[in-house]
Amino acid sequence: MQKIKAAVVGLGFIGPAHVEALRRVPTVDVIGALHFDLESSRQKTQELGIAKAYGSFEEVIADPEVQVVHICTPNAMHFHQAKAALLAGKHVVCEKPLATTIAEAEELVALAAQTGLVNAVHFNIRYYPIVRQMKVMREKGELGDIYSVVGTYLQDWLFKDTDYNWRLEPEQSGESRAIADIGSHIMDVLEYITGVRIEAVMADFNTVHKFRKKPLKPVETYSGKMLTPEDYQDVPINTEDHANVLLRFSNGNRGVITVSQVSAGRKNRIDLEISGSVSTFHWCSESPNNLWIGNRDGANGQLMRDPSLFHVEARSVVSFPGGHNEGFPDTSKQLFKEVYQAIAAGKQPEHPTYPSFADGLRELIICERIVESNKKQAWVTV
Amino acid sequence: MQKIKAAVVGLGFIGPAHVEALRRVPTVDVIGALHFDLESSRQKTQELGIAKAYGSFEEVIADPEVQVVHICTPNAMHFHQAKAALLAGKHVVCEKPLATTIAEAEELVALAAQTGLVNAVHFNIRYYPIVRQMKVMREKGELGDIYSVVGTYLQDWLFKDTDYNWRLEPEQSGESRAIADIGSHIMDVLEYITGVRIEAVMADFNTVHKFRKKPLKPVETYSGKMLTPEDYQDVPINTEDHANVLLRFSNGNRGVITVSQVSAGRKNRIDLEISGSVSTFHWCSESPNNLWIGNRDGANGQLMRDPSLFHVEARSVVSFPGGHNEGFPDTSKQLFKEVYQAIAAGKQPEHPTYPSFADGLRELIICERIVESNKKQAWVTV
Amino acid sequence: MQKIKAAVVGLGFIGPAHVEALRRVPTVDVIGALHFDLESSRQKTQELGIAKAYGSFEEVIADPEVQVVHICTPNAMHFHQAKAALLAGKHVVCEKPLATTIAEAEELVALAAQTGLVNAVHFNIRYYPIVRQMKVMREKGELGDIYSVVGTYLQDWLFKDTDYNWRLEPEQSGESRAIADIGSHIMDVLEYITGVRIEAVMADFNTVHKFRKKPLKPVETYSGKMLTPEDYQDVPINTEDHANVLLRFSNGNRGVITVSQVSAGRKNRIDLEISGSVSTFHWCSESPNNLWIGNRDGANGQLMRDPSLFHVEARSVVSFPGGHNEGFPDTSKQLFKEVYQAIAAGKQPEHPTYPSFADGLRELIICERIVESNKKQAWVTV
Amino acid sequence: MQKIKAAVVGLGFIGPAHVEALRRVPTVDVIGALHFDLESSRQKTQELGIAKAYGSFEEVIADPEVQVVHICTPNAMHFHQAKAALLAGKHVVCEKPLATTIAEAEELVALAAQTGLVNAVHFNIRYYPIVRQMKVMREKGELGDIYSVVGTYLQDWLFKDTDYNWRLEPEQSGESRAIADIGSHIMDVLEYITGVRIEAVMADFNTVHKFRKKPLKPVETYSGKMLTPEDYQDVPINTEDHANVLLRFSNGNRGVITVSQVSAGRKNRIDLEISGSVSTFHWCSESPNNLWIGNRDGANGQLMRDPSLFHVEARSVVSFPGGHNEGFPDTSKQLFKEVYQAIAAGKQPEHPTYPSFADGLRELIICERIVESNKKQAWVTV
Repeated sequence: MQKIKAAVVGLGFIGPAHVEALRRVPTVDVIGALHFDLESSRQKTQELGIAKAYGSFEEVIADPEVQVVHICTPNAMHFHQAKAALLAGKHVVCEKPLATTIAEAEELVALAAQTGLVNAVHFNIRYYPIVRQMKVMREKGELGDIYSVVGTYLQDWLFKDTDYNWRLEPEQSGESRAIADIGSHIMDVLEYITGVRIEAVMADFNTVHKFRKKPLKPVETYSGKMLTPEDYQDVPINTEDHANVLLRFSNGNRGVITVSQVSAGRKNRIDLEISGSVSTFHWCSESPNNLWIGNRDGANGQLMRDPSLFHVEARSVVSFPGGHNEGFPDTSKQLFKEVYQAIAAGKQPEHPTYPSFADGLRELIICERIVESNKKQAWVTV
Repeated sequence: MQKIKAAVVGLGFIGPAHVEALRRVPTVDVIGALHFDLESSRQKTQELGIAKAYGSFEEVIADPEVQVVHICTPNAMHFHQAKAALLAGKHVVCEKPLATTIAEAEELVALAAQTGLVNAVHFNIRYYPIVRQMKVMREKGELGDIYSVVGTYLQDWLFKDTDYNWRLEPEQSGESRAIADIGSHIMDVLEYITGVRIEAVMADFNTVHKFRKKPLKPVETYSGKMLTPEDYQDVPINTEDHANVLLRFSNGNRGVITVSQVSAGRKNRIDLEISGSVSTFHWCSESPNNLWIGNRDGANGQLMRDPSLFHVEARSVVSFPGGHNEGFPDTSKQLFKEVYQAIAAGKQPEHPTYPSFADGLRELIICERIVESNKKQAWVTV
Repeated sequence: MQKIKAAVVGLGFIGPAHVEALRRVPTVDVIGALHFDLESSRQKTQELGIAKAYGSFEEVIADPEVQVVHICTPNAMHFHQAKAALLAGKHVVCEKPLATTIAEAEELVALAAQTGLVNAVHFNIRYYPIVRQMKVMREKGELGDIYSVVGTYLQDWLFKDTDYNWRLEPEQSGESRAIADIGSHIMDVLEYITGVRIEAVMADFNTVHKFRKKPLKPVETYSGKMLTPEDYQDVPINTEDHANVLLRFSNGNRGVITVSQVSAGRKNRIDLEISGSVSTFHWCSESPNNLWIGNRDGANGQLMRDPSLFHVEARSVVSFPGGHNEGFPDTSKQLFKEVYQAIAAGKQPEHPTYPSFADGLRELIICERIVESNKKQAWVTV
Repeated sequence: MQKIKAAVVGLGFIGPAHVEALRRVPTVDVIGALHFDLESSRQKTQELGIAKAYGSFEEVIADPEVQVVHICTPNAMHFHQAKAALLAGKHVVCEKPLATTIAEAEELVALAAQTGLVNAVHFNIRYYPIVRQMKVMREKGELGDIYSVVGTYLQDWLFKDTDYNWRLEPEQSGESRAIADIGSHIMDVLEYITGVRIEAVMADFNTVHKFRKKPLKPVETYSGKMLTPEDYQDVPINTEDHANVLLRFSNGNRGVITVSQVSAGRKNRIDLEISGSVSTFHWCSESPNNLWIGNRDGANGQLMRDPSLFHVEARSVVSFPGGHNEGFPDTSKQLFKEVYQAIAAGKQPEHPTYPSFADGLRELIICERIVESNKKQAWVTV
């Protein structure tokens, strides 16, 4: 069996998660990786058991063996790397956000279309099996017309003013933080499940910590909590710790989302409540294998992630039988399974089952409108 | 022992709950009640084991035995009845909303102050023991500076367009429905627990069912679901089924609330998440005896309603030991216990522990600003 | 309306709960009460707003006004008081256990039958609305043939060796403690819900604290946790803190129960899982308004206490609509409602809906067989 | 980097789970696999992306490249294959049960000791991060002296009499079914967490379905539910569907476990409640990333799987930060990580951190005593 050869670029928090997930897909071989430079790449590939260590991004895309590039670098690098990889004829799986401006993202979508190469954005939340099942149930009419969505995505890894990370710096991460980082996931999955489009937004941002203490050595995402604070400098913070956004949907009904990175005790919790004219769906990422189904006229339902209980259309993203919990690492595996089926077929399908660059662009547009709404303190059409 | 003599006016859904709760307070005697007219009052008092049946509100306030009047009638009648009762020298416990306009409520607050009579509004949610405990914990600094509040109050008793009730009619219920009926509870309790004030609001209302089918016979609150639909007429609906409201607090931070009466499977669910600089509190009325306490640096906490685990200041509203669940009916009992202590002392205390007419006015003001914000589609200062 | 006149005897922990619950039943008037002696009765009746304070049990049953006697004294007094009350022509509601020996209980059952007087035992757990609903669902075949029951009743009020109470003394409480006090509730409700009979038992008792520190002043049930330990004496403990009991049912299938009074963090938690050939029921007293229904072939169900969702036969024990949680205090109200309907009718019905002295006897028999099994370390037939 | 070369034998339900988990360990290379014969091996290795397909077990152990053999075949084959693999100088990871008799397991333990080869049994439940954390907390005294253990392991994949699988046949699976298959997991993890030993057992087995309908074509574990029943034959069933077992521990205290494979709605649920003299631990595999900690004197705790909140000694089995749920597939990865560290070091360590053949033997002894107790209907010493 000839496996598809992938290289992963950026080995901070999420890059190694890509590597591990890719190895679970029988058709993929992770042949090489790049961290910052040759030395750091050598150290990381040694730890991760990857054969080749690259010294630069140019080396990665110049390697004729590499068929697919996974971009897991800080946000500001996504556009240039994705563009270069496409131009080098590589399929690209990019971390979100796809780019830091709409213009860049539009360029990538156009370029990807031109080349016909497979392009995907790692909106992995779609691949919790219950999320796929909700989408299929909605398509079958089991939710009905969407009345209301209430979504929250809460974290506490930036709870203290001593918590620091590159994501706090607009030049690396972009103008919006909580909305772009985690709000984008929740909006992507919301549109994915419900099938309605967000047509207008009204946002209210808040920066709880106007200043933070920046450490004098580098810290990986999520790992700050494990450090002992030592030497810091005070830096002003311009991006939001917390935001509420009102939403209006294409069907005339409404929603609201809340994101926070300063919510003590909520480590990384997505909570979605979607009410429709037939039933209500409630799902929370802390109990990702369960779907609550609200009914007006009978008992509510509690559907477990179990292929034998799922609609046929949702079974392909489930690997294990009911009661054998799957979690965060499994979402990337399922996403990559679908992406690599397309790669095996040689080109981006017309209607990909996985999130594409077009979806990455969509989230950038929504996020930019949200930022604009917050500035204007008024409703903005998406 | 000389008991304090009370009369209850309005015996639909909540009036009998007042009667039952009052009987649990050792110092109170419910001596009489009024429903619509003498005949309906006779039937209801017979069912409820109450000695006197009144033929009119005038009779109630003319009865020299009556010391306290509980007003449980449709919203539009509250103002006139409360005013008349105060003028007749009776202490008054009024259902929320206190009135249908701010002016009326202000008049009642002023009149009550003049008379010195005890005045209370039945914001019973404050009397879930966990709510009191949250307030006390906040006062002791265990929550810290308030960062964010996310509150939802969801019901499904008006889910279908065949669900009908007087609360759907603005002339009986007021200009706002979901916000006034259930949003007021959540805002009252939010300010009560956190100690911050709502200073500005930005609202988005939605009427999911633009028309409803009105039945041709009367239906009590919450009991519509048990009827077999028969003869209906289509009526246009002008009040909101669903609303999202952004909030700004006196400390500069933010919140959001969602109310819905069309959320299948959510029978009557209040869910509050309050994040502060020290911890996060989460409480849900479906599991009213538990408080979740979010921590950044250690295990989260799960505090049960247990007097031995509560702060001393919160113990008085707990009747039963830990593990002996208390619920909705107990909240009214605890509220009335505190109100009747004031009545026993003869006058409204300077700082009542229970919600007073001033609190009723406060909610009317907030609700009116929310309605205004929805009309203007802009932030409105409270 | 002529109300039925009741007296309550024993005003420790559960007596005042009877008083409060009785007041919620429109047809009942609690006219008097007895604590230990006239002085303590005066103090307690004053607190509870009860008109008459009795000086002795003889006075209670000699009072011609009293129609019903509620016996809430320590276990060892139940038999004599119940017997005397019946002989005096009073209806009797007795706390569990009905007596401390089978012979005594048999005498009471026979005497009650002779007199025709209404007799009830306060197995209040049956009156959680979900419990009634489970019974009705089982009767309708929605559970199927019973395969397995797993029940636990866990408390922590005797967790420490400094926790002390009259229930620790066999001469007041009987030879068994955890099984008799809380195990009896779980076995009663188990047979009630499932309709199968316990036919054999195999028990394993354990006394974790072989010695306890007895305080030198009296302590009411559940209130020990609120005392500051001071003066104690070491006393040996002969009754079980913890027990596991295997059960065999009349249909050939099996169960197991666990009771503990030394389980930290479990304040008063009953947890029942009943598997049948059609579905599984799970109910926990910490979330008493919810029933989990396990299904093999579809989503599991989560039925809320909501009269509109209940079978008609189970609705009478529900007072409030869905989402308005009811709890422990409400169970006694519902039990008394049914008992006082019988009293109003003048005699014990042939098939009472409430737990009768016969049910009290049944629990004594099962408990005695469990004690015997523990001694023999072998299965014993009930 | 030279990777360690592994072969997997048996590719039904659990073999592919080994393959996938092994690939997540950077130091391992799965070079080949065997299913039944060459043809089925070719098909399965093709699906799984494995290079070599073996035609027989002899081929596997004759392959000089293979350093480690994973035995994932039906129970009756474990002994012979493990023995042959050890004799061929291969390290062995065996599925549980290690063998079908104590004598066989003793022979394997002795042989493994002689060879010094690494030997492990796939008791993966130990590798839920919360389980490791509970063990470490117990070692640090945070649980105290063990008072009580209540464990249940419930499934529904054999709920119907039309459910069939090789595990129902004693000649393939052994004399005990539910206890050996799933009870062994719960007893292993119970001793692992608590540090106490099971010293005596008293069992009660039940076969709910005395006859089952055996399909005329092969069915993989857990996948029966997805078949359409067609052609069956009635076969008598001699192994238990359901069992309760009382336990006595080395510290004098007690426990009880329940296992069932006929519990509708419980797909694969382990639930453990361990009470000690300091606190209570509750963990359920359906919510595997949470630990409930019961306290007598303060709020209970809810500890999430989060390396920053764990004891240092428990962090190595956690791959992802708090809130990024890990599940069943991750347990095998963590187990294999520790096993392959030993393999990299060249021999079985004196005190392996992973479950060894000695642990496999231990479970066989306990299970055999349980079977004996059930036959004798009496307590049996382990």
